[in-house]
Amino acid sequence: MIKYIVTGCAGFIGSNLVDRLLENPANEVVGIDNFSTGHHKFLENTKKSNNFRLYENDLLNLKELKYIFKDVDLVFHLSANADVRFGVKNLRKDLEQNTIVTQNVLEAMQYNNIKKIIFSSTGSIYGETELIPTPENAPFPIQTSLYGASKIACEGLISAFCEGFDMQGYIFRYVSILGERYTHGHVFDFYKKLKNDKKKLEVLGNGKQRKSYLYVQDCIDAMFLALNKSKQKINIFNLGTNEYCEVRDSIKWICDELDVNPELRFSEEDRGWIGDNPFIFLDTKKITNLGWKPKLSIKEGVIRTIKYLKQNEWVFGVRK
Amino acid sequence: MIKYIVTGCAGFIGSNLVDRLLENPANEVVGIDNFSTGHHKFLENTKKSNNFRLYENDLLNLKELKYIFKDVDLVFHLSANADVRFGVKNLRKDLEQNTIVTQNVLEAMQYNNIKKIIFSSTGSIYGETELIPTPENAPFPIQTSLYGASKIACEGLISAFCEGFDMQGYIFRYVSILGERYTHGHVFDFYKKLKNDKKKLEVLGNGKQRKSYLYVQDCIDAMFLALNKSKQKINIFNLGTNEYCEVRDSIKWICDELDVNPELRFSEEDRGWIGDNPFIFLDTKKITNLGWKPKLSIKEGVIRTIKYLKQNEWVFGVRK
Repeated sequence: MIKYIVTGCAGFIGSNLVDRLLENPANEVVGIDNFSTGHHKFLENTKKSNNFRLYENDLLNLKELKYIFKDVDLVFHLSANADVRFGVKNLRKDLEQNTIVTQNVLEAMQYNNIKKIIFSSTGSIYGETELIPTPENAPFPIQTSLYGASKIACEGLISAFCEGFDMQGYIFRYVSILGERYTHGHVFDFYKKLKNDKKKLEVLGNGKQRKSYLYVQDCIDAMFLALNKSKQKINIFNLGTNEYCEVRDSIKWICDELDVNPELRFSEEDRGWIGDNPFIFLDTKKITNLGWKPKLSIKEGVIRTIKYLKQNEWVFGVRK
Repeated sequence: MIKYIVTGCAGFIGSNLVDRLLENPANEVVGIDNFSTGHHKFLENTKKSNNFRLYENDLLNLKELKYIFKDVDLVFHLSANADVRFGVKNLRKDLEQNTIVTQNVLEAMQYNNIKKIIFSSTGSIYGETELIPTPENAPFPIQTSLYGASKIACEGLISAFCEGFDMQGYIFRYVSILGERYTHGHVFDFYKKLKNDKKKLEVLGNGKQRKSYLYVQDCIDAMFLALNKSKQKINIFNLGTNEYCEVRDSIKWICDELDVNPELRFSEEDRGWIGDNPFIFLDTKKITNLGWKPKLSIKEGVIRTIKYLKQNEWVFGVRK
């Protein structure tokens, strides 16, 4: 048996990952979530598995973590504050939920002599780089959001612990992820707005922001492949599709799938909020060279997401 | 009057900076230090100035900071845990003293509407980059120490706050700094060892590590110049001399100045400790293009440091 930790196990990517891991009966999964944004409903079936154990704990409690991490082989650390938008209201959320939590995860690993960590980072870490498509070794980035700042802090901590304690780190810099159990991001927001008023849609920014997206199962495939094939001390991979779309394209697909035709109201800015990056497109040669290829295009991913939301409108009711 | 905050005002660089600032009678300086490594003795004369006010506070206390930062124009944030060596004993020191403290400083600035921060970062932030001499826009670095990890976290926070709150940031990536009030680093360690036993000297690593150093007054000159001449939102500068030396060279200058001839005992590793970077040499074209040139060579800086230590052996007695 291989024993995995999955932090953020009740979240969008985390819960999908847990299900994939449990497809192999030789895998045992210990999931941790504080349910601040995760959903018990995502784990309904998962909880029936004898190979799954759930801890409803907060990762800020290091003492508990040290206990929970006992006898674990490998840690998927997916828990995070994933809101990239800049807020003056809660300036410490990224520091606490991302940076400090990651330090705790690493200390609990070091304490229990666990040697492998897989981490969900972000393409936002490149800030507003001029090099597009952006490779993993892009020029030294300048952060434009507290979210990106916390993720580069986490990456630094992981690399330093790997150097200091002979661990192995897998760092995946995602574009935005789409698919089943998606509960956060522009498709969610547009769907929600259109549910309330299908005649008009207000869009943050001028709609020309160019973004890249990836389907959640493709994302998980890529992580598994990299774990199998890449054996460096620090393994860093961009994960995204080899394309991008404009926010306007995405709105069209969403509206077509929902069969609505709202009046679109854009603002004049080239970005939707402070720190919004008007163009995200990652160079994914490093992972595709290992033999990975996403199965869904961005358009297919958006449509799949809308179909999921249609069948699961409960997510709008409970979203915090 | 211009009112400055200097954090770490009783430290090596901080106390020298305060004295330089107070040379201008139009400057008012509010110094903060928790004296964990700083020395009251460094401020003996400074305290006599009517334009200086000292707060003996810990920067982890945000509430106090918000009060102290009232009516300030500009913040020099120099306070830090500056020990680059990897320790298992205190895995949270860099996180707390560097990352979290910097978040607090930025929040206190935002709260008081202060728009300019000057920050002491480090060449260690480049990890073991292959690009040497290393420019500010070197490829995306991989951290090899918790110290470097915390400094890249701080840089990210500063950039994000500048983006979010229309602040201006000056980030200086130093090589090791030498000169009067130096109380930390290899010259200090070697001097101390030779004071105890002038017949032999144990060296961490094989002595072939190539390092770069800069004299403290040259460092301060560079910061003042950049503040005057560079007006971007984020201004990042490497600070170092246009040369490097081997640890062996440095040992020779130290021994000559102390008139000792110890047997040298090296270890076989090409680095002195986990995370020690065997070759640090920064490209300083960006700052020299503004018209700055260091007045002292590395050798002159080392000798100046030894002369200072000879006249101030008290620093060995009180060093924590």
